[in-house]
Amino acid sequence: MASSGNRTCLSLVLAAGEGTRMKSALPKVLHRIAGRSMLGHAISSVYRQGSGDASGDALAVVVGPGRDDAAAEVRRFAGEADIFIQAARRGTAHAVLAAQAAIARGFDDLIVMFADTPLVRAETIARMRAALAAGAAVAVMGFDAVDPTGYGRLIVENGELTAIREQKDATDAERALTLANAGIMALDGRRALEILSAIGSQNAQNEYYLTDAVAVARRLGLKCTVVMASAEEVMGVNDRVQLAAAEAVLQDRLREAAMRAGVTLIAPQTVFFSSDTRIGRDVVVEPNVWFGPGVEIADGATIHAFSHLEGARVETGANVGPYARLRPGAHLGRDAKVGNFVEIKAADVGAGAKISHLSYIGDATVGADANIGAGTITCNYDGFDKARTEIGAGAFIGSNSALVAPVKIGDGAYVGSGSVITENVEPDALALARGRQATKPGWAAAFRAERQGKPKKRP
Amino acid sequence: MASSGNRTCLSLVLAAGEGTRMKSALPKVLHRIAGRSMLGHAISSVYRQGSGDASGDALAVVVGPGRDDAAAEVRRFAGEADIFIQAARRGTAHAVLAAQAAIARGFDDLIVMFADTPLVRAETIARMRAALAAGAAVAVMGFDAVDPTGYGRLIVENGELTAIREQKDATDAERALTLANAGIMALDGRRALEILSAIGSQNAQNEYYLTDAVAVARRLGLKCTVVMASAEEVMGVNDRVQLAAAEAVLQDRLREAAMRAGVTLIAPQTVFFSSDTRIGRDVVVEPNVWFGPGVEIADGATIHAFSHLEGARVETGANVGPYARLRPGAHLGRDAKVGNFVEIKAADVGAGAKISHLSYIGDATVGADANIGAGTITCNYDGFDKARTEIGAGAFIGSNSALVAPVKIGDGAYVGSGSVITENVEPDALALARGRQATKPGWAAAFRAERQGKPKKRP
Amino acid sequence: MASSGNRTCLSLVLAAGEGTRMKSALPKVLHRIAGRSMLGHAISSVYRQGSGDASGDALAVVVGPGRDDAAAEVRRFAGEADIFIQAARRGTAHAVLAAQAAIARGFDDLIVMFADTPLVRAETIARMRAALAAGAAVAVMGFDAVDPTGYGRLIVENGELTAIREQKDATDAERALTLANAGIMALDGRRALEILSAIGSQNAQNEYYLTDAVAVARRLGLKCTVVMASAEEVMGVNDRVQLAAAEAVLQDRLREAAMRAGVTLIAPQTVFFSSDTRIGRDVVVEPNVWFGPGVEIADGATIHAFSHLEGARVETGANVGPYARLRPGAHLGRDAKVGNFVEIKAADVGAGAKISHLSYIGDATVGADANIGAGTITCNYDGFDKARTEIGAGAFIGSNSALVAPVKIGDGAYVGSGSVITENVEPDALALARGRQATKPGWAAAFRAERQGKPKKRP
Repeated sequence: MASSGNRTCLSLVLAAGEGTRMKSALPKVLHRIAGRSMLGHAISSVYRQGSGDASGDALAVVVGPGRDDAAAEVRRFAGEADIFIQAARRGTAHAVLAAQAAIARGFDDLIVMFADTPLVRAETIARMRAALAAGAAVAVMGFDAVDPTGYGRLIVENGELTAIREQKDATDAERALTLANAGIMALDGRRALEILSAIGSQNAQNEYYLTDAVAVARRLGLKCTVVMASAEEVMGVNDRVQLAAAEAVLQDRLREAAMRAGVTLIAPQTVFFSSDTRIGRDVVVEPNVWFGPGVEIADGATIHAFSHLEGARVETGANVGPYARLRPGAHLGRDAKVGNFVEIKAADVGAGAKISHLSYIGDATVGADANIGAGTITCNYDGFDKARTEIGAGAFIGSNSALVAPVKIGDGAYVGSGSVITENVEPDALALARGRQATKPGWAAAFRAERQGKPKKRP
Repeated sequence: MASSGNRTCLSLVLAAGEGTRMKSALPKVLHRIAGRSMLGHAISSVYRQGSGDASGDALAVVVGPGRDDAAAEVRRFAGEADIFIQAARRGTAHAVLAAQAAIARGFDDLIVMFADTPLVRAETIARMRAALAAGAAVAVMGFDAVDPTGYGRLIVENGELTAIREQKDATDAERALTLANAGIMALDGRRALEILSAIGSQNAQNEYYLTDAVAVARRLGLKCTVVMASAEEVMGVNDRVQLAAAEAVLQDRLREAAMRAGVTLIAPQTVFFSSDTRIGRDVVVEPNVWFGPGVEIADGATIHAFSHLEGARVETGANVGPYARLRPGAHLGRDAKVGNFVEIKAADVGAGAKISHLSYIGDATVGADANIGAGTITCNYDGFDKARTEIGAGAFIGSNSALVAPVKIGDGAYVGSGSVITENVEPDALALARGRQATKPGWAAAFRAERQGKPKKRP
Repeated sequence: MASSGNRTCLSLVLAAGEGTRMKSALPKVLHRIAGRSMLGHAISSVYRQGSGDASGDALAVVVGPGRDDAAAEVRRFAGEADIFIQAARRGTAHAVLAAQAAIARGFDDLIVMFADTPLVRAETIARMRAALAAGAAVAVMGFDAVDPTGYGRLIVENGELTAIREQKDATDAERALTLANAGIMALDGRRALEILSAIGSQNAQNEYYLTDAVAVARRLGLKCTVVMASAEEVMGVNDRVQLAAAEAVLQDRLREAAMRAGVTLIAPQTVFFSSDTRIGRDVVVEPNVWFGPGVEIADGATIHAFSHLEGARVETGANVGPYARLRPGAHLGRDAKVGNFVEIKAADVGAGAKISHLSYIGDATVGADANIGAGTITCNYDGFDKARTEIGAGAFIGSNSALVAPVKIGDGAYVGSGSVITENVEPDALALARGRQATKPGWAAAFRAERQGKPKKRP
């Protein structure tokens, strides 16, 4: 909802924090929740969420020095974003001014977002922009804190935000206030540089604090206001316990949205979605299913327990699992079935086709109504390259067969169980590639006797 | 507990609701919790639960027009039930009177149950019948609501229920009452038609409300009373969020009952039972196990993590999983073992037999103490029919073998690894059906050189 | 922390309870939480936890008559422990005196611990010992009970414990106290026998109660004190519902500790650790992972969903699962990969080696950078013995191959898909062992026609 009427907007995401409490080689903002980095979530909250014209929207992200990984993540979400580097760590206002060149281009609205608050809703950002449109020069996101200790308190008089009071400077009466500063701020884009430049560093830490924007704006005779968010929404992530807590909140949102839209989750707490999961009506999901990024499930499909999907598309009425793994590029046609202990990768499985057990189908097409027996494996890799397997419509692959790619099984063809198929099979033909059965009567009895210490020659 | 002394009883289940908030092609009452439809749960709550003589019990169900699926579900639980259709939707009393023919047959007790309240306990219904036996003409199920807004309030004076007051008609004092109407009602079966017929439709919606039975009965000088239930028990299901909540309550009941009976659930929240799961003492269930309908586990069995059972019977001391899938008709004998990535379907696995890894055993018998190697597959389907595999006692099936059914492996026989067995194997014989090994020295080195762009002819 | 300065200590664990409410053939104290018996947890809480010199520490355990299984479990944790048998059940003080011979050896401190309170923290025990060191003759573990009904209340005056008042003997004022007796006690080891011997059995049950030690000590002019624990910590386990509750508490401790140390648990509630799990920094664990006893995971490894590990070691950067089962003796080298539906047992997998799908690798070594195709099975068992498979560095095993042990595949060798390898393969050679492909054109069409009732002879 970054588009508010015809007003232009610069969304500025601060992503330079180090996050030492994560105890990680990865920068904090690249840690993921629901399959998306926190940085990605922050960008999604503020940038191009509106349904209207977003042509006036721009994105700038401030990262720490040497953080090519963070910059690359920004480009994944918005190739056109401006990326700035905060060379020294001198406070939040200093971080914002790292993006001075972008702010100076002149936007109606400036949103200052933090990359480690991944749960902010786009509609809350839209309300902040609405506050600017209604005349505020500064809109501060506030929330009602159960325990406000440590947070700046928002002092509101006659509907206007008059001050942000830090814990250490607060009177007893002010400390009793539970209206707390969430940090996120919207500024009038035409006055933002004037306000930001006036923020000083006369404090114990000698840093430039964005919160001082309120005092500056007030001195300039500008109006400040508070926009409320839920405490959950503004949850910050500083360590992995908080990361897991944020993940839990987001998963609960995704689960409830799915259920409200007509999906049955037998045990919602055991189903894990990605932010981009798309899932249709009357889909039933058994417990313990993992949806990685890029999954799309059509109406009426069933996802059985212990399935793991990523980058997969499942059509109407298809049946997945239990214990099915759909990897990127898996596409199951209407009413297709992929059963237990089956892995599908980069393969198109036709309508009504069945791959019921213990198979690996990779780099392949499987025709409509084909039946792939238990233990079938497409041998798609020779140590150097991947090659394709094509299985025709209505083909029947006997159990425990290996199809050595590149290879083509024609429509309606049969492959005998236990075959290793290295050459193409014509439509409607039978192919067999296996040893002939030989029997040695009495061998097993002799073998057992021998092994049990009663020597007896085996035939 | 529908049998109360020698009194006869008609249990009437109202199942005509549409449930548009489910956003489903399936009627609401056919959605499942713990593997059983809500309609099935409602029937189970009221019908033939007593340990005594249930010969005087009858069941009637009112369904919506054209709901053959709901009628079929009723027949699954009680083939002898009377099914009535509520052609028009004119209120709960109107729905009850759709079953007028059944009521008119004359029963001591009439229970009116709703198919979308699947958690009502049979013992609560028994207490309602006891209230009738004690002289009440109408017993209304009540509960203490945390937030009673929207519920009818039960007005009780001197131990008698004097009125059900709807929210809109209630005084402030009445609105402060938390004793709420759960909807479920028991009526004196001999007076029920008289009472029900006297209910009018003089209200804003012009509908016939069952709650008016209280006022009517009072006018007739009959006694009304309240029977308390827990709020949890009377939880109604109108959307999939509530469906999941009801599922959670029922699962918790089933888990606690199992633990109290001597089952170890390491992580109860991750184990999912069906309403009909039977599970013995000293069974240990690791986290993440799914029990679909029709499972029976004997004392001392172990069910490892990530197992998925349905329609399966597991004998004492047997060992299942992790990652075992037992499908309908799987029967594991005493001390049998089914290990990881193994699927068993319609197969009898003898005492002490082991199927430890990566196998599919379907439409088969496996003799006692047989050892089925990793990767064994019974090829039971030829595209048209299923055929059976019989493996004798003490047989040893080498890994990666395919047994092409119909086929019989005799007692004590050996099958060499990697064989495709198409003919019967006599007891104590060895069968081999695989290619002979050939080697091309240096081939791999040449192949690699070639693929790395340093052409070198492969031998 | 059983070592406190230079004071010697006897830790006495009472493990003779029967635990009939467990409804189990197994004695209560052998039921497990987080992979360790409750008895083991109790021992770990009190014995040799200190970082200092523990040479003065001793352990004694009192078990019920005939409980060889409990005695064996004690020996697993502490082979040098003294094991005593409580022949008759005459109360807790009587149980303690079963270990009279050990106490009489003379220790500075005596800790009396109960084997069914598995969650007591070692640091709480250390605080009890510190209380003895500071002059108390008896230190009683207390906790603040939400509902103290049924517990003995700790009466404290001027910082001293003056009495333990049982529920039935308490005045109304005393019953209002929430400071409850957790049972665990520390005694001055030099006075312990004197105190314990003076405890009588003048009570309704005619039993000797350890709680009377306080009254006795007071009579002797000795000082008694209270050491606080959390209510969670002193949770007793009497049935399987409480067992599951204790498991949940312990799992939460283990999960939080892992996260604080730099492990990402996407869904902490779905990850199950053992008490001895060791797991490095920047390890990411997807939902639904089971760590049985004896697992060690190095920094930067990834454990995907639905994995099941026990007795396994995973090196830096290795990739496990989803659906990987690592059994005891599995060792994955740096950056090795074990993918879906793969079981590894007693096998050393070299750095960079890949076993991506549907394989069983047991009793084997896999060389660095080897590639094991889907469906590969090491046939390590012939019904009598296990034999080893050696796969060389850089070897390539084609899919669906069976390697019949003992067998050795040389470095850089290739095995063709679908082969059954029974003889060693030299380095850099190609081995094939499979049938030749034969085709019968038109066979499948004729077969289908025949089966559909339109007879047509198959070629």
